[in-house]
Amino acid sequence: MSKVRKQTWRFDHPIFLAATGTVVGPLESKGPLSGNFDKEYQHLNCGEKSWTEAERALMRRAIAFCLAKAGKSEGDIDLFLAGDLMDQTVTSNFLARENRIPFLGMFGACSSSMETLAAGAQLVDSGFADNVLCAVSSHNATAERQFRYPTEYGGPSKLTQTFTVTGAGATIVTKEPGKVRVKEATIGRVIDWGIDDASNLGTAMAPAAADTIWTHFQDTGRKPEDYDMVVTGDLSSVGSPILNELLLEKGLDITNVHQDCGTMIYTPDQPVNAGGSGCACSAVVTYGYLYNRLAEGSLKRVLVVATGALLNSATPKEKDTIPCIAHAVVLESAKEGQR
Amino acid sequence: MSKVRKQTWRFDHPIFLAATGTVVGPLESKGPLSGNFDKEYQHLNCGEKSWTEAERALMRRAIAFCLAKAGKSEGDIDLFLAGDLMDQTVTSNFLARENRIPFLGMFGACSSSMETLAAGAQLVDSGFADNVLCAVSSHNATAERQFRYPTEYGGPSKLTQTFTVTGAGATIVTKEPGKVRVKEATIGRVIDWGIDDASNLGTAMAPAAADTIWTHFQDTGRKPEDYDMVVTGDLSSVGSPILNELLLEKGLDITNVHQDCGTMIYTPDQPVNAGGSGCACSAVVTYGYLYNRLAEGSLKRVLVVATGALLNSATPKEKDTIPCIAHAVVLESAKEGQR
Repeated sequence: MSKVRKQTWRFDHPIFLAATGTVVGPLESKGPLSGNFDKEYQHLNCGEKSWTEAERALMRRAIAFCLAKAGKSEGDIDLFLAGDLMDQTVTSNFLARENRIPFLGMFGACSSSMETLAAGAQLVDSGFADNVLCAVSSHNATAERQFRYPTEYGGPSKLTQTFTVTGAGATIVTKEPGKVRVKEATIGRVIDWGIDDASNLGTAMAPAAADTIWTHFQDTGRKPEDYDMVVTGDLSSVGSPILNELLLEKGLDITNVHQDCGTMIYTPDQPVNAGGSGCACSAVVTYGYLYNRLAEGSLKRVLVVATGALLNSATPKEKDTIPCIAHAVVLESAKEGQR
Repeated sequence: MSKVRKQTWRFDHPIFLAATGTVVGPLESKGPLSGNFDKEYQHLNCGEKSWTEAERALMRRAIAFCLAKAGKSEGDIDLFLAGDLMDQTVTSNFLARENRIPFLGMFGACSSSMETLAAGAQLVDSGFADNVLCAVSSHNATAERQFRYPTEYGGPSKLTQTFTVTGAGATIVTKEPGKVRVKEATIGRVIDWGIDDASNLGTAMAPAAADTIWTHFQDTGRKPEDYDMVVTGDLSSVGSPILNELLLEKGLDITNVHQDCGTMIYTPDQPVNAGGSGCACSAVVTYGYLYNRLAEGSLKRVLVVATGALLNSATPKEKDTIPCIAHAVVLESAKEGQR
């Protein structure tokens, strides 16, 4: 049918982001995108007494900014779609307990940002909801503690390893005209090329990103030059060249337009090894920096490809390799003169 | 708009279950619903070398039965929606790796059965997919190990505690005429009444079930007698009377039609304390027993209310109370003479 071509959803109605909310931690506040976020905490504890509470504060604050900027209250929202990296996505669950909005929990690891946005746009387009709130979060200390070691332990990290972004991003999807439009979404498949090193997720996720990007261009018939940017979520400096090489092998050259949120959010001299990662990485770059550029019209059309490594802390010990996924969303400027 | 009334989605098109697949473990095979499942394993290891692999085998087998009975192959399926209780829903992720179907991971704990079914029906109704595969699983030993202690440890259990069902259920949602129709879905809100005892999830979840059931009857204008059964997921013998009392206080009497999958799947003399629980509890009862009764027409209309406790293994230690949710789906017999 017309609204679906293979893996790509085309939305029949004009679907917009009513507003966005973004909150980051101290290291992100010293990165090159500082000033694009609504709140930049100077301490990892974000004024809370535990890392768990700190991550909840990030998502709570991102949602509060988003609602306020959209001029909406929780009662105006029909559905809340959220996900995070905590076991059983507890950050999202506890925020859903606070806001009491009908809730669909989603899990796509760091791809949850675009998974929730794609699902939200689909629900609004099809008339099952008027306003959908989408949110994701990650916190460096909660993620390190859960997947590796508590940060206080001071364990060494490999150079291929990424640094989980501390932050949260939220947006409201609606048919009410806004500054940024959600045009299409490409839903990814799970790809596993046999990487078993949980300290090298950029390499593990690159084939999944390549699969989704390749499929997106096949489904839409577009070319890379039709986009101002093709932005991956958290492939980092290790995974990004692998992605570009995998696509070049298939005859698709995105090198002129490709950037990665994980390398955009930090400067090379920050102590993050291969770059940023986590649900918040693609979320705060998209809902902060990219949203601002699209809203003002200096970017016309962007493909955001959020990447996720679908392991847990036990699967590497059980000698499993790492299944990965990528979900892509096309965002366009609603300013006149867009493509 | 007409297709949504508050929290309840009404599907415009006739939406059907093309088929179902259900697999259970040894204790379930000795329960009163034995014979309604496609495969009943006599050992908890399901022929695999680890509990992790055993749970994957359950979901793999349930999907295989479902596809075979629907006369479809993986290539016919547009989307795979799945969830489970493992940290980062790894059972679902690893199955998505095998079947390579575009994948949206969902998390609603034990409510994931009806969360995936509701979302699948919505995607088919709105024309974003023709065939959606929905699946969930749980395994007693993987769940006990993760949330409490390894079963080999032989720890004592409280009488309010439920027993995680070993099993998996799968279905394919489609517009092609079938024997059972998906009519409506009510999406739940997260409710937390302050229960902090992870060994008493029936009590914790009862208010969430009451909220969704109350909302469903408000949204649809129906009465309990319009249903042959209102079936909760895993409130057990402890939570079920609390649910009934909460609804009676609001003037809604479902006692004549209410049953709970957690008490239906075992006999009172089986060593399961308060009854069954887990994603598979509502899934195998719905896709096994209820599907069979609806298909033959001995049940006309059923409301399945899958309940989920949205904690993880850390939150009770952090003195958090337990947020809970319930998602409800209306299933109808497609045989002539349905209501």
